[in-house]
Formats: sequence, C-alpha cells, structure tokens
Amino acid sequence: MLPDLQFLHRLADAADAVTLPLFRSKLAVEGKVSPQKPFFDPVTEADRGAERAMRALLAEVWPDHGVLGEEYPPTNAGAPALWHLDPVDGTRQFVTGVPLWGTLAGLAVDGAPTFGLLSQPFTRERFLAGPGFAIYRGPDGVETEMHTSACASLGDASLFTTSPELMKDEAGARFRALSQQVRITRYGIDCYAFGLVALGAIDIAIEAGVQSYDVMALEPLVREAGGAMVHWDGAPLRGGGNVVAVGDRSLLPQVLSLLS
Amino acid sequence: MLPDLQFLHRLADAADAVTLPLFRSKLAVEGKVSPQKPFFDPVTEADRGAERAMRALLAEVWPDHGVLGEEYPPTNAGAPALWHLDPVDGTRQFVTGVPLWGTLAGLAVDGAPTFGLLSQPFTRERFLAGPGFAIYRGPDGVETEMHTSACASLGDASLFTTSPELMKDEAGARFRALSQQVRITRYGIDCYAFGLVALGAIDIAIEAGVQSYDVMALEPLVREAGGAMVHWDGAPLRGGGNVVAVGDRSLLPQVLSLLS
Repeated sequence: MLPDLQFLHRLADAADAVTLPLFRSKLAVEGKVSPQKPFFDPVTEADRGAERAMRALLAEVWPDHGVLGEEYPPTNAGAPALWHLDPVDGTRQFVTGVPLWGTLAGLAVDGAPTFGLLSQPFTRERFLAGPGFAIYRGPDGVETEMHTSACASLGDASLFTTSPELMKDEAGARFRALSQQVRITRYGIDCYAFGLVALGAIDIAIEAGVQSYDVMALEPLVREAGGAMVHWDGAPLRGGGNVVAVGDRSLLPQVLSLLS
Repeated sequence: MLPDLQFLHRLADAADAVTLPLFRSKLAVEGKVSPQKPFFDPVTEADRGAERAMRALLAEVWPDHGVLGEEYPPTNAGAPALWHLDPVDGTRQFVTGVPLWGTLAGLAVDGAPTFGLLSQPFTRERFLAGPGFAIYRGPDGVETEMHTSACASLGDASLFTTSPELMKDEAGARFRALSQQVRITRYGIDCYAFGLVALGAIDIAIEAGVQSYDVMALEPLVREAGGAMVHWDGAPLRGGGNVVAVGDRSLLPQVLSLLS
C-alpha cells in the first residue's frame, strides 16, 4: 500500500499547523553559528515540532515505513518505503520573515523517489506529486495540474540556486559556467525554486552538497510535471549531493555537459 | 485634503486587480535586454496596466495632485502633493513567478514622503502608512500595527539588498564594509525587504542607485513603524539614489559611518 494525494494533504496539514503559527514569531528562533556551521543555520521550534507531527502521522498510518528526517534520528531506515522529511527547508528565510521556505516530505520506494510534497503555508501553496499526478494548490484553494515550460535553449533559460556562496571550488566553477550561458540567474529561494520549475515558471534549479531530505521530495514534483531532476553526472536522483532540475528535458544534455 | 488608510486600500485594489491575474501568466512578459539595460528588465502588461489604473483613480479623487510613475510621463510634476508610483517593483521576480514583487505608491508633500503603500497581492499582504499610522494587512485579512524590531548591535543585524551586483565601485565597497559587520546578509527581494523592516522581521534594508518611485512609498512605512530610512550620507530621504532603512534608529550612526 502506498499513499495518495489525500494523504499528502494530511501530512502537509500536520506540518502546517505547527510551522505557520511560529512564522514571524519572535519566540521561534534558536540561532546557531559555529566554525562547523559557517552559515547562519537556525534550528527552530517549527523544524522540530513539524517533524514530530509528520512522524506521528506516518507512524500511525504507515507503521512499516521508515523515516529519515533532518531533526531526529532515523526510524526503520532499512525499510523499502522510506520517507525523507525536511520540516523547514530554507530556515534562513523562515527566521527573516521571507515566506519562501517550505516543508518537504518525499517517499522513496526501493531507493527511488516516488511521492513528493512541498508546502508553503503562508502563501497557502502546495506542490504534490506521485505516480501519474503532479498537482499545485494555490492560495485560492484550487488544484491544477502542474506542467513544466518548454525551453529548448540555454540562452532563454532562467536559473535559480539558493546562494552562489554554497557552490565551492570545482562545483562553483561548474555552476558559473552554466550561469554564464543562461538568460537570468537568481538566488535565495531554496526548495521553492524546484516548485517553480514544476509549475513552469522557471527553467532550471540547481544545488550543490545538499542532503537527501532536501531533494527526495522534489524529484517527483519535477518529473511528474514533465521535467527531469538528476545528479550533476546525469545519474538518477537517489539521494543528496549535487542536483539539477530542468523543466524541459531537451535542455538536459547541454546542462550536464557544463556540470559534469 | 490628504488621503487616508481607506484611500490607500482603494489604490492598492486598483493595482491588484491588474497585476494579480497577470502574475505567472505566460502572456504577460515582454523582455528587454540591451547594452543600455544590462540586467534583465522586462516591462510587463502588469506594470503598464497597474500604473494606468492607479493614475485613473488619482485623477478622479485628487485632480490637483501630481504623479510621477515608472511607465508614463509625469503629470503636474510641480504640484505640492506628488505621487510616486512603481506599479511592479521587482519585475525580475514577477516574471520568474516569485511572489515577492510589490506595487508601490507614495505621496510626497512639499517633497517629504508622507503616505506609503506596498501591496503584494499574491501573498495578500499590504503595508500602509501615513502620519500617525503604520498598518500591516496579512493573508488572513487582519490589520495590525507595524513595529520595527530592537537591534542595538550591527553584529546581531540581518541585512537585505536586491543584489550585490547592483552595488558598483565605491558603493559596492561601502556595502561590503557593512555586510561584513552584520550577522546575516540576504539578497533578492527588492521592495519587500523594506516591508520586512517595517514589520520587525529584519533589521536593515539597503539599495544603491534607485529611482524616487522605488523608495518614496517605503520611507513612511519604515518611519511610522519606528525605524528610519535615509540617504547614505544621513540626509532625509527626498528622492532616489543610495538609501538605507534601519528598524532600530540607534543602529543608524554605526550604519552611516560605514556608508558615508
């Protein structure tokens, strides 16, 4: 048995009930900066509470499934059906009041990303996908199918990444090679950029050195909407590392030739 | 006679009715890139239509007022009461589907910014201010007073600007001097950052080389919420150029010493 669209909504509801009341709340922030964490990387009550809420629902409905989350130790990590949870992706945005962070939940089956959920409760947006469906629910509550945009030439493409400062050394050089070929490069929106690829609003989203729970929820959104999300060497996405999503699959050879 | 909160809402309603239906619409974009405009600077139907809608309302209600807008020639520019309109501030965000652009309308009286409006219709947020009031209307429709945050030390401050690439030469060096002193620097959200200062979510917003219609609407929001928005040399904000907003006025001497 596997989940469906309605279950993904239930999971998002559970997380949203925790995160939204804490967003822009002065009480929510617990900042941490250390030599081991050179970027500002606060861990909030929202992060912890939303992961607990999602884990509780998963344990109740899918007791055989495993769970990997950002905030708590793995549960049943060897299970064939394994959830990847990032309760607040984009914590720097969360703590600065910018409503483009997201709650991520992805279900991998035998290692392959299969279901995905991105929820942004302040804008009231949800991006949801599984085998045969890719659904966007907007602020007005209306659900529509997501379709990526056609963009056959890199020179016409819009490219998003969280921060050029996160692209180190060799990865940075490859990222810049790609950035120089596209029409526009924009920064600062984390997971939400992959939602915009699925929605057809932008053409390419890219990250380096990310965790599996940062990306496993996103691959189904992009793929089921008509695009592709892979590792920089072209391998199917099976975890974290360096990842890239394109809305138009015909862009992939040009993009990968610059990245790998 | 001067406007009030209700009139600012009417003005925002007029613009929102044009901009929101065009946001994420594939038909709306008219891109322009040229050597004279090295950044991607599309002009959309939203820009033009919203300025026309606001101008029509202003001409009807305040026939003696002047209007400076981004898209059309000035009207009665010598009037003591002069509106400054930027129908879509953050056009790069608009055309990439990122809901953090804003409609700006500011009324200067004898040159001094007096009333201000920032509307983001997708998130359903409005920031409104005039003599004695600074009001935020959130997605739930509830209006609350805005208050900036206390932040007495630069080392604790969050700093936002649209793009480091917009900070050229000497301005760039001064911006970097400031950026090195703060806790966190973030990019990419244009006018919305000044709304976040007024709301107390962040501490400093800064821009270089902007137009008067980019900033005249924002100064009343920040000032009436308890902060200050001035030129980099400390002069009262009376038009475009290099501007900085702080939520905590006690930060101003430290900030200005690095900028001027």
